[in-house]
Amino acid sequence: MSMTSTNADAVALTERLIACQSVTPATGDVFAALEEMLRPLGFTIDRFTVGEAPDGPVENLLAWRTTGPGPHFAFAGHLDVVPPGPGWTSDPFTPQVRGELLYGRGAVDMKGAIAAFVAALHGLPDDLPGTISLIITGDEEGPAVYGTLALMERMAARELRPDMCLVGEPTSTARLGDVVKIGRRGSVNMWIRVAGTQGHVAYPHLADNPIPKLVRILSAIEAEVLDEGTDWFQPSNIEITDLEVGNAAHNVIPGAATARISIRFNDRHSGASLIDRIRTLAAADGGTVEAKISGEPFLTQPGALSELVTDAIREVTGLDAELSTTGGTSDARFLSRLCPVVEFGLNNATMHKLDEAVSVTDLQDLATIYGLIVRRALAG
Amino acid sequence: MSMTSTNADAVALTERLIACQSVTPATGDVFAALEEMLRPLGFTIDRFTVGEAPDGPVENLLAWRTTGPGPHFAFAGHLDVVPPGPGWTSDPFTPQVRGELLYGRGAVDMKGAIAAFVAALHGLPDDLPGTISLIITGDEEGPAVYGTLALMERMAARELRPDMCLVGEPTSTARLGDVVKIGRRGSVNMWIRVAGTQGHVAYPHLADNPIPKLVRILSAIEAEVLDEGTDWFQPSNIEITDLEVGNAAHNVIPGAATARISIRFNDRHSGASLIDRIRTLAAADGGTVEAKISGEPFLTQPGALSELVTDAIREVTGLDAELSTTGGTSDARFLSRLCPVVEFGLNNATMHKLDEAVSVTDLQDLATIYGLIVRRALAG
Repeated sequence: MSMTSTNADAVALTERLIACQSVTPATGDVFAALEEMLRPLGFTIDRFTVGEAPDGPVENLLAWRTTGPGPHFAFAGHLDVVPPGPGWTSDPFTPQVRGELLYGRGAVDMKGAIAAFVAALHGLPDDLPGTISLIITGDEEGPAVYGTLALMERMAARELRPDMCLVGEPTSTARLGDVVKIGRRGSVNMWIRVAGTQGHVAYPHLADNPIPKLVRILSAIEAEVLDEGTDWFQPSNIEITDLEVGNAAHNVIPGAATARISIRFNDRHSGASLIDRIRTLAAADGGTVEAKISGEPFLTQPGALSELVTDAIREVTGLDAELSTTGGTSDARFLSRLCPVVEFGLNNATMHKLDEAVSVTDLQDLATIYGLIVRRALAG
Repeated sequence: MSMTSTNADAVALTERLIACQSVTPATGDVFAALEEMLRPLGFTIDRFTVGEAPDGPVENLLAWRTTGPGPHFAFAGHLDVVPPGPGWTSDPFTPQVRGELLYGRGAVDMKGAIAAFVAALHGLPDDLPGTISLIITGDEEGPAVYGTLALMERMAARELRPDMCLVGEPTSTARLGDVVKIGRRGSVNMWIRVAGTQGHVAYPHLADNPIPKLVRILSAIEAEVLDEGTDWFQPSNIEITDLEVGNAAHNVIPGAATARISIRFNDRHSGASLIDRIRTLAAADGGTVEAKISGEPFLTQPGALSELVTDAIREVTGLDAELSTTGGTSDARFLSRLCPVVEFGLNNATMHKLDEAVSVTDLQDLATIYGLIVRRALAG
């Protein structure tokens, strides 16, 4: 299949970004490539690096263009990719079109979406007043401590306040446009620890085995029903993800036992309320809980922004997108503090996998959809 | 406290054995020291080393003296000691008497008992017909694969068949002579494994978490009552001794989970019957079981041998010893295949601990008790 490659072509732009190796955290070249794409379009570019080890330093790019008074539309995404791993059919950082598909690490997650957005910008009318910004981090796949959060601080310092935000994560599942995300579940990890008294298995009365207590706590947690789901969210879910005792001695009752759980939860809960709940359960059998909240849930109530997106999708693909809140967390959990946020992007079937690939037709259709969305968003 | 130290003094002999560093497996010096103590008493000594890594090589010593036709009395024990660890008040391999106590690794487990037995031999009448043997291994605290079992093979080859055996393990608990062991529980370790399907915590329907199944299996095991004990045995007991998943990724549902249990069981069960029982329980939730039997239970029915021992104890200490089957396994589990076996030795309060120490009075009393036992055993 022969492709026409112009500056405004989503496929060519995707290829250019894929060719810049950017395993998380992304640095240098790939940001330079994006900067070169945006400068000719009149964008002001602020590239900056923040943070220290172990979660930094992280490189970010903030771009904005104001063409007159009007709404501020923000597009958010990331240039880092997950490691390719061995076993690819062609080099993961040498973009290659085979048949209808463009192969390369980041093709769908999410260099393709960024390229589609840049391509869409090329097609916008000159006389559209308002502000368009791009919030692009080099660390979404990693710790994400100095990525989108740092960009949001940068925006606040520059008094850039978006009225709405579209995150270009790959939300489509079977066909481009079948799923739009209007929220995400929250995520919290907890470590449940039970301390006991070490001893010899032959003298259990002199020891206090913590494992049966941990088993009772975990049984109680397994029996816990957090909710039955809401209009927009599936039921909250608890998974026990690890057990750890680390007792190599066969004849020794261990002195402590730990389990880790991961809860994905909807907006009926907060991280703090769940920590309280598990802490109470654990305390009943002498367990203590440490917790780390990865993200609180958010929901952008279906309305103007989601309709803007689903209308554009329908016009280009004919599909009525499902409004969803499933899946993992994304940087939308941070951006939702600023303004209404919706996520829409490419088909995620091959994301994080070997031979990640995007349909070239999808790339072009996504550019068209993004173009419609921005145009109408700024038109108000 | 000043001690008189002669060849026949149990305290001096104990000091000499402690001074030979012999963290399991024991080799060389400590065996040479014992050999030097026994040769002047007319014993034939067979020192030999058997086995290969990882459970060998192991050094052993078999000694015997036949003074005429009569019963064969065997004394069994070990010269290896557990590692001292840091934090001792005085050097663990430099015997030191402070007050009424002799300090040093192995003082009670069980160099002191071996020394007491040698001291007892010095006091025996010359005209006592019969056979006395010492079955001494350098590996009781370790794998014990090439220790007492190898000594038993050696005895069979030499046609040495004891009629009764006294194992000098430290069986006393509060006072010397309060407890004699006439049996030991069996011991079996089992590894229970549940396999599942790894996946992302955000998409649990695409995964199959093995941990809740393992928790159910462990709950069922905890609810299991094996028995209520017997005349001579306490109830069999199950301890969960380890949990292992090894999943470092917070957002991943693991693909497998494993627990280890340790069962100490009385003569209502066999290792095989318990493996069957746990295997059935585990299978109900998809778990598989691997097992290793460390020892089957044994019981020397109270009778002539135990009375011989308890009578001697009563005469020296005034105590009526309790006949017990509690505690861990010992090499008596092997020796019980040869002949009736009883275990009796020093106070075990400090065994395997920092500042292991034996009462010098206890050492001398134990030598007296052992002397009475051997004399009467050979007298028939």
